[in-house]
Amino acid sequence: MNSYQPLKKGIEQGDFRILARALTLVENEIEPSSALLQSISIQNAIPVIGITGPPGAGKSTLVNEIVNCFVNKDKKVAILAVDPTSPFNFGSLLGDRIRMAQQFNNPNVYIRSIATRGALGGVSIKTLEMIDVLRAAKFDLIIVETVGVGQSEVEIAGLADKTIVVLVPESGDEIQNIKSGLMEIAQAFVVNKADREGADMFANNLKKMIHQQTAEIPVFKTIADKKNGILELYNWIIKPIDKVNDRRKFLLAEKALRIIQHYKMQDIDKKQLRLAIEEAALKPDFNIYKFVEGWIKHS
Amino acid sequence: MNSYQPLKKGIEQGDFRILARALTLVENEIEPSSALLQSISIQNAIPVIGITGPPGAGKSTLVNEIVNCFVNKDKKVAILAVDPTSPFNFGSLLGDRIRMAQQFNNPNVYIRSIATRGALGGVSIKTLEMIDVLRAAKFDLIIVETVGVGQSEVEIAGLADKTIVVLVPESGDEIQNIKSGLMEIAQAFVVNKADREGADMFANNLKKMIHQQTAEIPVFKTIADKKNGILELYNWIIKPIDKVNDRRKFLLAEKALRIIQHYKMQDIDKKQLRLAIEEAALKPDFNIYKFVEGWIKHS
Repeated sequence: MNSYQPLKKGIEQGDFRILARALTLVENEIEPSSALLQSISIQNAIPVIGITGPPGAGKSTLVNEIVNCFVNKDKKVAILAVDPTSPFNFGSLLGDRIRMAQQFNNPNVYIRSIATRGALGGVSIKTLEMIDVLRAAKFDLIIVETVGVGQSEVEIAGLADKTIVVLVPESGDEIQNIKSGLMEIAQAFVVNKADREGADMFANNLKKMIHQQTAEIPVFKTIADKKNGILELYNWIIKPIDKVNDRRKFLLAEKALRIIQHYKMQDIDKKQLRLAIEEAALKPDFNIYKFVEGWIKHS
Repeated sequence: MNSYQPLKKGIEQGDFRILARALTLVENEIEPSSALLQSISIQNAIPVIGITGPPGAGKSTLVNEIVNCFVNKDKKVAILAVDPTSPFNFGSLLGDRIRMAQQFNNPNVYIRSIATRGALGGVSIKTLEMIDVLRAAKFDLIIVETVGVGQSEVEIAGLADKTIVVLVPESGDEIQNIKSGLMEIAQAFVVNKADREGADMFANNLKKMIHQQTAEIPVFKTIADKKNGILELYNWIIKPIDKVNDRRKFLLAEKALRIIQHYKMQDIDKKQLRLAIEEAALKPDFNIYKFVEGWIKHS
């Protein structure tokens, strides 16, 4: 029997072993994943915090400290670490995992990595679904950590309730070049390693830049490895989110679009498409746009 | 009259002004863009070279030198610079443009920037379409330059006939961490700034790593700003590509999938979806997966 019921029950009881299994099913689209997603009670009130920033900004150390704040208050936290398989993240993902090690044995902390490999709109749908599974597991906070270097990471960050962009003073020279895209995804900035030279100037420049565009985005200064400035950030994180504010509406519609896209692509027989296109491509007047139109009409 | 005929004719005659207009129509999906795409004669024999790598690797200088090789032989080159609007590319796009300046007045070189902003599978479909327009304009070479830092850039690079990944010796420490994804997109590596310390060791390590996986990927050493090592790279670039080899077949199927995805999403009324979801989300038992299934059935 392929029932989703025991999974649903286990998730809602906060059973990490069953949660892990459910996440694997959803990640790999193994049934009963879709029945499960349609049946679970997705707690939309649970805040999903996106944490992103360039490699080396100290994201993992910061996440570690934020998690400590929650755990110290007997709260349960889930961390979804989005590991972009982008080849240019020469990044220190292993090192990140080591920095997070102290949380691995904590019964109130659930850590999961997800690879974003796989193109064609599949980049983030799995992440969205996995977040929803976590939302049904009654955590007090869900953190989605991404290395902020590419478009797909930005997309994921843009789907969190609050996204924190972590920067370091060294980014100073380039601050003029920060694109407005950053403003669109950030609900807060953290200048980490704020004991480094130029940190104050960097934070001030950042504030100035933000004020030109919007007055609403706070800039926090932290020294995560010295547990400095974490409390202010924590207080901002726990501020409740409107249940259906404009941003939430926008996020829901975006999310629905992604799910629809995913569904719509499911009925395409990729093998058949490949065979058909291999044959068609041999013709001298082959035009892929004409081919696609014909293919959609006849399938 | 909204005819695509004059556009088609202008493109095929290599009229840069008309080409620019056609690219703008295609980029913004303004009719007659789809009729145009279906009517133009896409020259699949024209090589599309992807050039990617981290910021600061010297991609633009290298592109400049490659272009010079072609221009000196009276060949026509198109450059599509994909400007990722990713906020973490603090990059020096303006600087890049300045490095390319000597080509701007060359009647045999066409340069176009394209922003990849816009989520939901729209990231690269425009790039693909614009490449196909360029393919109809009878260039001898099309270069697609992307800053290689994210998944979407990798996807674009993966759709070129040959992709060159440009690295610099400084990446040395992290070479162990280069993910296999890099091997999947690279048909060649260039170690640029090869006069820097550690360049030989870096190139050797890179070669060793490649040989563990495949023996087919060459590693070129260049010092682009001294025009060093360019000829070897040029000779590799001009090597003909099989018309329908396995990689080409794979690329065609990938491309068709993207186009199909794009078509399939076009008939979705996003405004209506947003209104429907705003209403549904107010209900306490709202489940987005159930909502999407119902929405697809009824629309």
